[in-house]
Amino acid sequence: MLVRLLYASRAVDSSAAAVNAICASARQHNADHGVTGVLVFGGGIFMQCIEGGRQTISDLYGVIHKDARHQDVVLLHYEEITERRFGGWTMGLVNAERVNASVLLKYSERAVLDPYAVSGRASLALIEDLMATASVVGHT
Amino acid sequence: MLVRLLYASRAVDSSAAAVNAICASARQHNADHGVTGVLVFGGGIFMQCIEGGRQTISDLYGVIHKDARHQDVVLLHYEEITERRFGGWTMGLVNAERVNASVLLKYSERAVLDPYAVSGRASLALIEDLMATASVVGHT
Amino acid sequence: MLVRLLYASRAVDSSAAAVNAICASARQHNADHGVTGVLVFGGGIFMQCIEGGRQTISDLYGVIHKDARHQDVVLLHYEEITERRFGGWTMGLVNAERVNASVLLKYSERAVLDPYAVSGRASLALIEDLMATASVVGHT
Amino acid sequence: MLVRLLYASRAVDSSAAAVNAICASARQHNADHGVTGVLVFGGGIFMQCIEGGRQTISDLYGVIHKDARHQDVVLLHYEEITERRFGGWTMGLVNAERVNASVLLKYSERAVLDPYAVSGRASLALIEDLMATASVVGHT
Amino acid sequence: MLVRLLYASRAVDSSAAAVNAICASARQHNADHGVTGVLVFGGGIFMQCIEGGRQTISDLYGVIHKDARHQDVVLLHYEEITERRFGGWTMGLVNAERVNASVLLKYSERAVLDPYAVSGRASLALIEDLMATASVVGHT
Amino acid sequence: MLVRLLYASRAVDSSAAAVNAICASARQHNADHGVTGVLVFGGGIFMQCIEGGRQTISDLYGVIHKDARHQDVVLLHYEEITERRFGGWTMGLVNAERVNASVLLKYSERAVLDPYAVSGRASLALIEDLMATASVVGHT
Amino acid sequence: MLVRLLYASRAVDSSAAAVNAICASARQHNADHGVTGVLVFGGGIFMQCIEGGRQTISDLYGVIHKDARHQDVVLLHYEEITERRFGGWTMGLVNAERVNASVLLKYSERAVLDPYAVSGRASLALIEDLMATASVVGHT
Amino acid sequence: MLVRLLYASRAVDSSAAAVNAICASARQHNADHGVTGVLVFGGGIFMQCIEGGRQTISDLYGVIHKDARHQDVVLLHYEEITERRFGGWTMGLVNAERVNASVLLKYSERAVLDPYAVSGRASLALIEDLMATASVVGHT
Amino acid sequence: MLVRLLYASRAVDSSAAAVNAICASARQHNADHGVTGVLVFGGGIFMQCIEGGRQTISDLYGVIHKDARHQDVVLLHYEEITERRFGGWTMGLVNAERVNASVLLKYSERAVLDPYAVSGRASLALIEDLMATASVVGHT
Amino acid sequence: MLVRLLYASRAVDSSAAAVNAICASARQHNADHGVTGVLVFGGGIFMQCIEGGRQTISDLYGVIHKDARHQDVVLLHYEEITERRFGGWTMGLVNAERVNASVLLKYSERAVLDPYAVSGRASLALIEDLMATASVVGHT
Repeated sequence: MLVRLLYASRAVDSSAAAVNAICASARQHNADHGVTGVLVFGGGIFMQCIEGGRQTISDLYGVIHKDARHQDVVLLHYEEITERRFGGWTMGLVNAERVNASVLLKYSERAVLDPYAVSGRASLALIEDLMATASVVGHT
Repeated sequence: MLVRLLYASRAVDSSAAAVNAICASARQHNADHGVTGVLVFGGGIFMQCIEGGRQTISDLYGVIHKDARHQDVVLLHYEEITERRFGGWTMGLVNAERVNASVLLKYSERAVLDPYAVSGRASLALIEDLMATASVVGHT
Repeated sequence: MLVRLLYASRAVDSSAAAVNAICASARQHNADHGVTGVLVFGGGIFMQCIEGGRQTISDLYGVIHKDARHQDVVLLHYEEITERRFGGWTMGLVNAERVNASVLLKYSERAVLDPYAVSGRASLALIEDLMATASVVGHT
Repeated sequence: MLVRLLYASRAVDSSAAAVNAICASARQHNADHGVTGVLVFGGGIFMQCIEGGRQTISDLYGVIHKDARHQDVVLLHYEEITERRFGGWTMGLVNAERVNASVLLKYSERAVLDPYAVSGRASLALIEDLMATASVVGHT
Repeated sequence: MLVRLLYASRAVDSSAAAVNAICASARQHNADHGVTGVLVFGGGIFMQCIEGGRQTISDLYGVIHKDARHQDVVLLHYEEITERRFGGWTMGLVNAERVNASVLLKYSERAVLDPYAVSGRASLALIEDLMATASVVGHT
Repeated sequence: MLVRLLYASRAVDSSAAAVNAICASARQHNADHGVTGVLVFGGGIFMQCIEGGRQTISDLYGVIHKDARHQDVVLLHYEEITERRFGGWTMGLVNAERVNASVLLKYSERAVLDPYAVSGRASLALIEDLMATASVVGHT
Repeated sequence: MLVRLLYASRAVDSSAAAVNAICASARQHNADHGVTGVLVFGGGIFMQCIEGGRQTISDLYGVIHKDARHQDVVLLHYEEITERRFGGWTMGLVNAERVNASVLLKYSERAVLDPYAVSGRASLALIEDLMATASVVGHT
Repeated sequence: MLVRLLYASRAVDSSAAAVNAICASARQHNADHGVTGVLVFGGGIFMQCIEGGRQTISDLYGVIHKDARHQDVVLLHYEEITERRFGGWTMGLVNAERVNASVLLKYSERAVLDPYAVSGRASLALIEDLMATASVVGHT
Repeated sequence: MLVRLLYASRAVDSSAAAVNAICASARQHNADHGVTGVLVFGGGIFMQCIEGGRQTISDLYGVIHKDARHQDVVLLHYEEITERRFGGWTMGLVNAERVNASVLLKYSERAVLDPYAVSGRASLALIEDLMATASVVGHT
Repeated sequence: MLVRLLYASRAVDSSAAAVNAICASARQHNADHGVTGVLVFGGGIFMQCIEGGRQTISDLYGVIHKDARHQDVVLLHYEEITERRFGGWTMGLVNAERVNASVLLKYSERAVLDPYAVSGRASLALIEDLMATASVVGHT
């Protein structure tokens, strides 16, 4: 059973090195477990959409909850799916600080990444917009 | 929470100078508060569509109600939204007196800007038509 | 409040001169009152679709009822609208006798203009088809 | 082909005698022509919903337009129908001045009969509400 | 044109005397202007749903914005309507502090009146629930 | 923002004493945080549906992930909601071993509680069925 | 494959004896061929709705076309169906001349049986109304 | 009132001469009566879709029933329509034996014309497919 | 994953003893494997609807295909389901020869059990009708 | 009556020779019986979608159940259809081991052919995706 899960968290350490370490470990884990998805980060905030088997995704989300590098983890969206949207990305990356401000503003009160202030549906729409505008890349 | 609000008002002083002053202050305020939108004016009438955070838009609408330069303020449309339509405009401007008459006539009994005579839905449709026909500009 | 009204009538005098006189007066009146629309005629039958303010259209329809040049006036369709379909025409004209027969046949039992025999919806569809096939012109 | 037509008018003479005369002639005509419907009056305003054959109703509406006792005739609603709503009434009557004020207020800005200020849909809803609340009677 | 508007505000002075004064003046104004609605209050917060003519409601909302007894006014919902929901109430009242806690909890994170934290749709649903459970009364 | 979350887990220790301890602590926590819901247990499996503020529910779900008494935690359903379904229960309880077998069988391959084998939608439907058949109680 | 067919015809001889003969032969034929339905007659007009296997109904309709006792046969409605509406009637009968006039008027311009003047949908609705008002009987 | 009727029959004499005679008489009749349509034939089976006035089509179908050159006439589809699909064809022809086999197979169990084995909807879909693939011609 | 499967077959030996033997073995197997359903028989034909886990039902259907007591096995309907309809029956039985003839006729050309002649949807509707009319029993 | 059936099975012998033998016999049988479809294989698993007459497909599926070369046969999807999707293929073939991994991953937890782990709807979507991406070929 395939599912899609979207969550946000705040990085305890938002240095480039720490962010890169999180990304690298996510990519390795995902390739091993059939997980695909996209990770958006900016201003010390992560927003990650992950797809895969139901138990696999639940386990991965549990690991994130226990990972001391994340705090304020909040679940934004979850659904059982028939097909993946991010089937081509082990872990696509978007640096929200390099994105056109009007894309962020389209879904938020201010032109910053702030999933804590909006509905999960708006955050999912932002990710789809980022995909459509080719803001997703394979590497940071 | 993002909202979209559309209202109309009559300018107490409809001289070009007065209109420009209103536009300039709107643009400055909006840029500071994450507000985007479009302002249509003509024949001494303003019709403005503003988008932003719910409390921000409510406060801004209260300021307009108290602004001695506006009279006959009437609320035309209001909705909570997931995404903005005017995300790219701090305050787009449309001079209704320079618009093709058939665009105004499409939504009104006469070829003038008269939001007081039609439903909010018709006024919103007019604004979308103006956007589609590239009648919105950055400056007066 | 905008409305759209479609009616048919039979010309008491269907000579070209009489038809032209009716068309000319319609066009003048419409331009003065914000009325737009299309007039189809052929075989001594008029079918006219008019759009404008609700009271304006009701008054105009009352005038037609009292106009001795029309008989067998029948109301075919009426609706409150948000936007006009014929906003660009003070009074577009279609000579049904010059139209491709298959267009008339598409909506009628025989290839003639006969709104008396079909539903108002079919007559409205015929007018839209005439518009799409560029059969509407500005002059007879 | 059955149709339903709703219109409003102002009585030139709104005395009880004049209103009764209008009602009496409506009832006689309708019984003769297979027309059914409801007539609401109050404050010098008539609102009448009539159902019957398409040509019959068009002819009857033309007669009303030419009747010197009516002015400001305005068409509110018109539709082709498969079945009548007022099949049991040659001409049901409602004296709007005897109706519970909250029923009128439900569809209007003030608790009076004023079809000129609202959409045809609201006026039709008022009539249905009057039927449901047994305000329709056979005689004035 | 009828509209329905829902807003919330915080009372500058939430003493019983001040609340009663606000309610009394609302009721007097509404009866004079064809306005109907419901006022919910509790914990120093007002939430009011008002229905009436479009310009009447806009003017009344402008008065509230300028009324020094209200602060943090926020617009929650606005729509053009065909029929009123509160046609029988000049100003129905609900004391949220006397309502069953589970009714408030059904639409809020905590069992208090807090329209600032939820969508306008949830606040409107709360009001409808209060009506269905007979929590609306004519007097405080 | 209100959300509803449904998850399942296996009890590490499924003795009555251990289950009761989990239920007691859930009930205390929920009452303190505006959380409502239902807990179904049987055969060493827990299935819990919780409703409340988005961050509150995310935090509570994180606590469950870290709670050594639960294993094989799996997320079954998650949605943003306008109103709660379990607003009247701090934590309703259902002992699946005392439920009529045909209720369990209706949504499962075998007449046991096994949310791991079915979709989240089926598990949610089971809970609603249990509510409708009065299987939910306040205490174990 | 089950179908439902509705047609009308005029009796060449509309005497009671001739009508009874038609009804009797219809009932006998239907019982033999798994055909069910309803026959409405009045004013020399027959309207019959028949249900059964596709080829059976086509053959029966061909017989009617060739039957010298029927003229002006017109097909009103035809559809493939999953279940019969008249499964309990070998051939239910309705004497339209004994039906309440308002039932006929509900679907026709005049209070007579005249399927030639209305759509097949209206005629089918009349039959359903006759069934609901218990106008269908087993014998004339 | 326009209708569309689809039927199938078996030719008593399926020689080319007999088929051509049937086609020729159909085309002549149709041109005289405002009938349009398409005739598909193959393997001794005819399937014809005809459009026109309701009484005209009923009469024509009655003629076919009585025509000794047709047997096993079966009605496949019938509906009242607002516009014709075959308005451009007095009688378009399709020789099913020259059609690409996969078009026939798409709607049938075997790659032959067999309307007796499938629903009327499938046969209508086949005709539309034949039109879309330009298999309809003006002459055999 | 739960599924529902409906099939028909002809009994090689339709004696009461043979039918009873088939029913008895079905009931035993179903109770052991979480399978629920209904078996309708009459005139030497079986129609069985079975629900359970996907692999369980596939295996059981394979057994029936290989069972020498069944011939002409035909699959009528299959769907993945969230909840069972027959959760209360290990194997409900309906003797079609004792059912009111009009129930069978409602879905068939003749008043006999003949699933071979109709769509699976009609057969499923028959079973639901039999359940609603209490024709299902626990024993033959 | 046309149907579409989708099933999966495991090859007892998954050598290329055995697979080819299965494919060859399928293609021969299908051409003889009006069956069209697609066969996907990989990792010792077959997934086949077949379309044709209802009894033909049921018989063919029964043959597969009895074929000793298949085991773990599971029914994935079944529906009555009006038109075929695979009308052009006697038996299209897809070697899942040569397909782009992201196509398989889009519908599965891992990038392998595993219809046993997902819903029939997902498997059908995979086949349609394979057709759209031209992965279907005529020969292995």
